[in-house]
Amino acid sequence: MSASRALLIVCDGLGDRPIEALGGRTPLQSAFKPNLDRLARHGISGTMDPIAPGIRPGSGPAHLAIFGYDPFRYYTGRGIFEALGVGMEVRKGDVVFRFNFATIDEERRVIDRRAGRIREGTRELVQSLNDIRIPGVEVLFKEGIEHRGILAIRAPRLGWRVSDTDPQKEGLKILPCRPLDATEESQRTAEIINDIVDQAIKILEAHPINKARKAKGEHPANAILIRGGSYYEEVSGLQERFGLKGACVAGGTLYKGVARFVGMEVLEVKGATGTYDTDFRAKFEAAARALEDHNFVFLHFKAPDLAGEDGDALRKLEVIERIDRAILGIEELRDTLIVVTGDHSTPCSIKTHSADPVPILLSGPGIRVDGTQSFDEVAASRGGLGRIRGLDLMPILTDLLNLAAKFGA
Amino acid sequence: MSASRALLIVCDGLGDRPIEALGGRTPLQSAFKPNLDRLARHGISGTMDPIAPGIRPGSGPAHLAIFGYDPFRYYTGRGIFEALGVGMEVRKGDVVFRFNFATIDEERRVIDRRAGRIREGTRELVQSLNDIRIPGVEVLFKEGIEHRGILAIRAPRLGWRVSDTDPQKEGLKILPCRPLDATEESQRTAEIINDIVDQAIKILEAHPINKARKAKGEHPANAILIRGGSYYEEVSGLQERFGLKGACVAGGTLYKGVARFVGMEVLEVKGATGTYDTDFRAKFEAAARALEDHNFVFLHFKAPDLAGEDGDALRKLEVIERIDRAILGIEELRDTLIVVTGDHSTPCSIKTHSADPVPILLSGPGIRVDGTQSFDEVAASRGGLGRIRGLDLMPILTDLLNLAAKFGA
Repeated sequence: MSASRALLIVCDGLGDRPIEALGGRTPLQSAFKPNLDRLARHGISGTMDPIAPGIRPGSGPAHLAIFGYDPFRYYTGRGIFEALGVGMEVRKGDVVFRFNFATIDEERRVIDRRAGRIREGTRELVQSLNDIRIPGVEVLFKEGIEHRGILAIRAPRLGWRVSDTDPQKEGLKILPCRPLDATEESQRTAEIINDIVDQAIKILEAHPINKARKAKGEHPANAILIRGGSYYEEVSGLQERFGLKGACVAGGTLYKGVARFVGMEVLEVKGATGTYDTDFRAKFEAAARALEDHNFVFLHFKAPDLAGEDGDALRKLEVIERIDRAILGIEELRDTLIVVTGDHSTPCSIKTHSADPVPILLSGPGIRVDGTQSFDEVAASRGGLGRIRGLDLMPILTDLLNLAAKFGA
Repeated sequence: MSASRALLIVCDGLGDRPIEALGGRTPLQSAFKPNLDRLARHGISGTMDPIAPGIRPGSGPAHLAIFGYDPFRYYTGRGIFEALGVGMEVRKGDVVFRFNFATIDEERRVIDRRAGRIREGTRELVQSLNDIRIPGVEVLFKEGIEHRGILAIRAPRLGWRVSDTDPQKEGLKILPCRPLDATEESQRTAEIINDIVDQAIKILEAHPINKARKAKGEHPANAILIRGGSYYEEVSGLQERFGLKGACVAGGTLYKGVARFVGMEVLEVKGATGTYDTDFRAKFEAAARALEDHNFVFLHFKAPDLAGEDGDALRKLEVIERIDRAILGIEELRDTLIVVTGDHSTPCSIKTHSADPVPILLSGPGIRVDGTQSFDEVAASRGGLGRIRGLDLMPILTDLLNLAAKFGA
């Protein structure tokens, strides 16, 4: 009589604010989305503060919270989740960063934060960086997507609270890495990073790929910009905590990384790109198939967030409509609790994450249907679920799957 | 202009989920309950997570929270509340268990967890157990209702984190009591309990009442099954914390016990059984009378929970209607804040407690009437009170009684 499995659909950056060009409605209010609205009509709606009211969530902390992991406890920085997302093998105690290939001038001023969005040859460039030598420290590089990569350093007693070397703006010089606390561990890590940055510039400057790029008038990848210092620790997974055998269908590495961190199986789906051109339907179908041998499937769509960050309300409306079409038939999934929500709002008006709570709906066996007629920010705010927090979601979900233990007697 | 007293009616296990046979409505939605609905129309409604969203509350922890006592701090196990509920005299530091009389075979396999639901002679059997001797330890037994009883052990430095000896299933052997943490105190308690279990079997096996039961072909009460290890500490009562002189009208010992724990006077009401056959009207009348010399009366009805655990939606509907009839005239109570809620949901579809929030209404002087038309899970979820937690209730109640102090100036 209870659902035996759950499908959690997270539409990244879903929530928005009223848009004048849409008559004061949000993209979600304006979109034609019969499937999402039907789920709302057959379900219970509410709003969710992914972290807490007024806290603007990054996608990493938001997803941790939604999966039941307190981000104040488990989120150190983005690096480790990107590392897990690209399948890098990390060990307890590794300090992990993201990096960009960039183009700098002789004075270490950043000319191009993405080295001409370099795609070709990054694997060789990353391999050459593995020649970097720091006594007593293992230095590990792995290429990511386009100009991005991962740097892990491995040694006893390393800190992770250090500043980024990425100045974030072109025209500024590479920043020195500085400890952000007074510990010897962070001091040591900062020194290692500065050494790595210096050695990397020497290696990259001399690399044939960069010489060829310069000859063609392209920006050379002659430096790395480091950010997102973080620390890896193993945590008990969703199976141990909640009795959930989880699978992840996502395009973006961050989301795959968080999913791996909490013990989900990360499925590779052809056409899942984590951008506008993703194959929405293929992702939904992969998620539906994964429900056959998992009791928890996380399906992530990135596109609404991209549209929000582009400030493009019509595009956001359109990708919501594409998501709605992609989930056609969702209610035919048997014994399945369906949850649809966002990880944060990305209002087109501010082109960045906001703390506006996200709409959430739950639909399936055992749900107290609340009479909500539409899935949107305003209808959801009057729904029967009330206003919950991200960390509340997994306990509510496992209760509805009848996996929850009773507290006392 | 404020209410001078409050009546809190807790309908155990009140909340439910949609029932197909009731057209997708809950028993509470389906019941004819003009008195409860009128309270809702003249009051403010909301939903309450007795402990927190997604946490399935046992009745003990839930009642602690509703009375303003954080169950994570004050709930150790059920034993102590059952002990207080049967009027046992306990002292600070006592470690207290519930026990069942049971029938076992020669290999200590449990044949009948309730010894044929023995009722007669349990007092004598309990008295015979007081012959158990453990050097340096006071061992105290008290009979409870039917096959149930209480065991308290008293000695310096005893732990309470020990496992149950009750295997919960017939056909399994009595379990050894094991410490659940690494302390010497828990180790010591486990050894004492195992010794008590052995001595009890010897005494009971030889007891004339059991010989007579066997001769009649009845299951002898030849063993005790122990569970609910807990620790007694005195706490400041409702008077001290909230300025409330409390009285309790309840049938079940657990509820009386929690009420005594928080300093309420426990009233004995003829016909209050804590089961289906309770005298609902006599309980309401006793509660109304108690309001004459108490400013807080807790009235507990167990029957909805029993029907939920039986999976009997029609019976649940019917006991809700009986409760509704029993409170006829409730609005004539002068200057009284009336609160109606549950301690947790017991959906008939799963026959056990769930974490679905319970409906709650507040009615009386000073209440912001919110226009809710019915007292049920769905109407309440759209009510003006929003979604609160059990621990919020007493502060809200004492504020409405004008007993609350201002925080700062």
